[in-house]
Amino acid sequence: MNKITILIHCNDLPGIVASVTNFIAEKQGNIIYLDQHVDREQNIFFMRLESEFIETSFSTEDFKTTFKEVLADKFKMKWRIYSSKKKPKMALFVSKYDHCLYDLLGRYNSGELNLEIPFIVSNHVDLKPIADNFKIPFHHIPVTKNTKTEAEEKQLQLLESHNIDFIVLARYMQIVSGKLINKYPNKIINIHHSFLPAFVGAKPYHSAYKRGVKIIGATSHYVTEELDAGPIIEQDVAHVSHTYTIDALIAKGRDLEKIVLANAIKLHANRKVMVYNNKTVIFS
Amino acid sequence: MNKITILIHCNDLPGIVASVTNFIAEKQGNIIYLDQHVDREQNIFFMRLESEFIETSFSTEDFKTTFKEVLADKFKMKWRIYSSKKKPKMALFVSKYDHCLYDLLGRYNSGELNLEIPFIVSNHVDLKPIADNFKIPFHHIPVTKNTKTEAEEKQLQLLESHNIDFIVLARYMQIVSGKLINKYPNKIINIHHSFLPAFVGAKPYHSAYKRGVKIIGATSHYVTEELDAGPIIEQDVAHVSHTYTIDALIAKGRDLEKIVLANAIKLHANRKVMVYNNKTVIFS
Amino acid sequence: MNKITILIHCNDLPGIVASVTNFIAEKQGNIIYLDQHVDREQNIFFMRLESEFIETSFSTEDFKTTFKEVLADKFKMKWRIYSSKKKPKMALFVSKYDHCLYDLLGRYNSGELNLEIPFIVSNHVDLKPIADNFKIPFHHIPVTKNTKTEAEEKQLQLLESHNIDFIVLARYMQIVSGKLINKYPNKIINIHHSFLPAFVGAKPYHSAYKRGVKIIGATSHYVTEELDAGPIIEQDVAHVSHTYTIDALIAKGRDLEKIVLANAIKLHANRKVMVYNNKTVIFS
Amino acid sequence: MNKITILIHCNDLPGIVASVTNFIAEKQGNIIYLDQHVDREQNIFFMRLESEFIETSFSTEDFKTTFKEVLADKFKMKWRIYSSKKKPKMALFVSKYDHCLYDLLGRYNSGELNLEIPFIVSNHVDLKPIADNFKIPFHHIPVTKNTKTEAEEKQLQLLESHNIDFIVLARYMQIVSGKLINKYPNKIINIHHSFLPAFVGAKPYHSAYKRGVKIIGATSHYVTEELDAGPIIEQDVAHVSHTYTIDALIAKGRDLEKIVLANAIKLHANRKVMVYNNKTVIFS
Repeated sequence: MNKITILIHCNDLPGIVASVTNFIAEKQGNIIYLDQHVDREQNIFFMRLESEFIETSFSTEDFKTTFKEVLADKFKMKWRIYSSKKKPKMALFVSKYDHCLYDLLGRYNSGELNLEIPFIVSNHVDLKPIADNFKIPFHHIPVTKNTKTEAEEKQLQLLESHNIDFIVLARYMQIVSGKLINKYPNKIINIHHSFLPAFVGAKPYHSAYKRGVKIIGATSHYVTEELDAGPIIEQDVAHVSHTYTIDALIAKGRDLEKIVLANAIKLHANRKVMVYNNKTVIFS
Repeated sequence: MNKITILIHCNDLPGIVASVTNFIAEKQGNIIYLDQHVDREQNIFFMRLESEFIETSFSTEDFKTTFKEVLADKFKMKWRIYSSKKKPKMALFVSKYDHCLYDLLGRYNSGELNLEIPFIVSNHVDLKPIADNFKIPFHHIPVTKNTKTEAEEKQLQLLESHNIDFIVLARYMQIVSGKLINKYPNKIINIHHSFLPAFVGAKPYHSAYKRGVKIIGATSHYVTEELDAGPIIEQDVAHVSHTYTIDALIAKGRDLEKIVLANAIKLHANRKVMVYNNKTVIFS
Repeated sequence: MNKITILIHCNDLPGIVASVTNFIAEKQGNIIYLDQHVDREQNIFFMRLESEFIETSFSTEDFKTTFKEVLADKFKMKWRIYSSKKKPKMALFVSKYDHCLYDLLGRYNSGELNLEIPFIVSNHVDLKPIADNFKIPFHHIPVTKNTKTEAEEKQLQLLESHNIDFIVLARYMQIVSGKLINKYPNKIINIHHSFLPAFVGAKPYHSAYKRGVKIIGATSHYVTEELDAGPIIEQDVAHVSHTYTIDALIAKGRDLEKIVLANAIKLHANRKVMVYNNKTVIFS
Repeated sequence: MNKITILIHCNDLPGIVASVTNFIAEKQGNIIYLDQHVDREQNIFFMRLESEFIETSFSTEDFKTTFKEVLADKFKMKWRIYSSKKKPKMALFVSKYDHCLYDLLGRYNSGELNLEIPFIVSNHVDLKPIADNFKIPFHHIPVTKNTKTEAEEKQLQLLESHNIDFIVLARYMQIVSGKLINKYPNKIINIHHSFLPAFVGAKPYHSAYKRGVKIIGATSHYVTEELDAGPIIEQDVAHVSHTYTIDALIAKGRDLEKIVLANAIKLHANRKVMVYNNKTVIFS
């Protein structure tokens, strides 16, 4: 069987669902998943649909062409269609913290993640042994004030030469530039170690300690040019108390960061996230 | 506008979604919500759909008739269609505990619940003052070993004379009989004060204390003839520690019971629950 | 038996615990609870201790006098000693939202709260019927731009004439003045409907909606002159999704507000909260 | 500085806290942590205390001897005293599942765990490469029906020759015998992949799926001779829905298992757990 996933958003009009499901039925597809959402405030319709087609008579490219002609243009849809045959390619950016890296590679190794990791990039060499253990190519691209532009060029070449679909900043401690962000819009996933929008910026655990919060959090979001202000994909929290030192907050937070980032990656890789107006619609 | 909600389940076959959405489109309906689920193990298709129709040209009864002829019979669907014009009627059964009663009536009063409460039934008089405060008729129907059948007859008459749609046992401390259950299948909602299936039966907080669990729970489920074994609608939990006495567990548990029961009632009243094979599909 | 609760904080020095527990032993007290905390960063020692004394031979006032002479002065302690014989008196300030009021009065009625509520104050008359139902005196003190000072005088007179120990703002929609705050330092408990420090100020659910957060929260804190910046007593959160409208966020948030405020009140009334440097130490 | 941790339980009598804290003060110790708990139902007193002593003038062995003579015998205490200088030695038993192993070794590597792992034992060879990557000796001890006794002898020799303090079954798929359990009472930590006491025994995720629960859990407990019935150290849960297949439950559960087991190990290794009457007192 050939499975495709369709993501659509457009102005809400009567008859869209019927038109799309009819189109699938005419092409002999069997709908195995359909979810939709209407943002009533902005009158925007969102839909995610999975459909199976019999192998021999189906071409994803032909389907796309007809879909565009018959439906997308008519309803002025923004749309994406993915074949399940092609796993998304994810580039992993890290610095010195290893907990998210271990967690992701452990999941990757066990087959939990529906994606490929062609390489790991880091501005430090510290985590190379972990990459080696998991037999994933590791590229050391140092970043200094003076070499920032040059380093980014190298990153871009790597990304393009491997046809990378999306980038994960697994506690990568450099700010990525607008150039990279524009090349990969809503395709760079960051993990921020606080419950955003509380504690934007550096050292959120220190700020949480100072404020005396009773709950800490982690947030995974798409990177936009405004710091820590991109569309939120996933958040989770944990209860803490006055007995937690900053180090204890950091240790507790690591567990949140790992799970929140892993969940965000899974949602993205399984094409379950749509972005509109700096917010996400998650069809989970 | 006239809004209807359609719930369907049947064997999974290609073309169901297209057929149903087409049918709606032909009737000039605008689909504002659609969610579906396929139980792959049993090959059962579930769907929930909300659609709006222009007032003047629409009759729910006519729609039902045509729906049955054109779709339901063809696909051998189990189906229900509800008009948003008719709020479900809920009978509230209580005994002596007041926390769920206060909570539900507070929500009812504030307009949070999309339902009507024509009356409250109790086997004790203790909670009558609360019913009076909220100006809801209160029927005292005592239940003893010898009067159980007779009491149930009175309950049934009340339920039928008010066209009750579903029953909520808000810590009602009597076991309801098979006769009542059969008259209201998957329409009697109970709140059990444990994380089922742990601690079935009486005194679950005592059992939780004895076992030394670190988390307690509450479970709302439909009542079936087997005790505490009906389809689960909603569950929630709270962390506890060795410092909790049984009384402290009970106090903590009350907050869970209130929220879990209220959520289950909202899901049911908003027609978001389907039952199949003693499990629920919740379209939330 | 006569039970007292002692709360102490002072610079951390060797021998404090031994000195205090010895003192209790010499007075024939039996320690039934002892918890302590050392803030290593600031070198501050905190202790909470409960002790039982035989009725006939014990006077709380004498105990306090000796405690001060023998221990408190020596270690330069800030200290408070409470007898369990005297329940704290709580004034309840409300405006138009009724959910926290219903919740608190339901708990009060069922004996869950270890305190007295001599009266309810409101700047509106809307919730008077609820106060009447629960037979608690209700004082309507309107607040307008011009009458703010005068209204506050009336509030202060009420508070003083009833020997109120602490004040709870149960969604009271007026900002209390520095004068009131200074009279009741760390004795005015507010419920803020967000996960502070995210979304300080008015309309936090609107801000949460706009930011697209996946979790909402509620925070109970002591009121200080800086808005929503006082010591945090309790926080809790709930998961939400893109399907939540602002109204749905508000409804979901109400459940958080109720529980978080009730828990904060219980902690305060049971003398389990100490404040230092705008943060709380919670001995739960 | 020399830090020791004292754990005590005995019948509750007046003056215990004062006697112990006095004893510490006389020995020139500075108490940096003290928590106690009284089980009122059984009249048992529990205490955990950390104290620092100046290096030169302190011997843990001498302290133990005097403590026994002066205090322990007098109050008939069960007691344990640990020096912070000696990290506990943990043996890791695994089979084929790798998620807990990766998680624990990642934490171990990053210095998060206050313990030593002298070796890993497995009844299969599958996970040897992971042990090799982390440079921890791996012992393959196959277990079959016929070789069970012999295999256990080998395990015991390994454990004894390395002076192992406690054993962790990180999804070890063999039932350990009464002999091993008796040698390591309340020193064998298991992770069970359900919210005990729900779903005791094999295949709990299958049972959870069948029952249609809305929450799944994981439980870490000490191993006793009765299956899955030992004292519970830590539990956690996650919300699930009807959309979860058994495989999805298993994947979601893995994250719970990792965190719950890691937390239980930290509590045990930091001497924060006391066991009485098949329940735990956790001084966290």
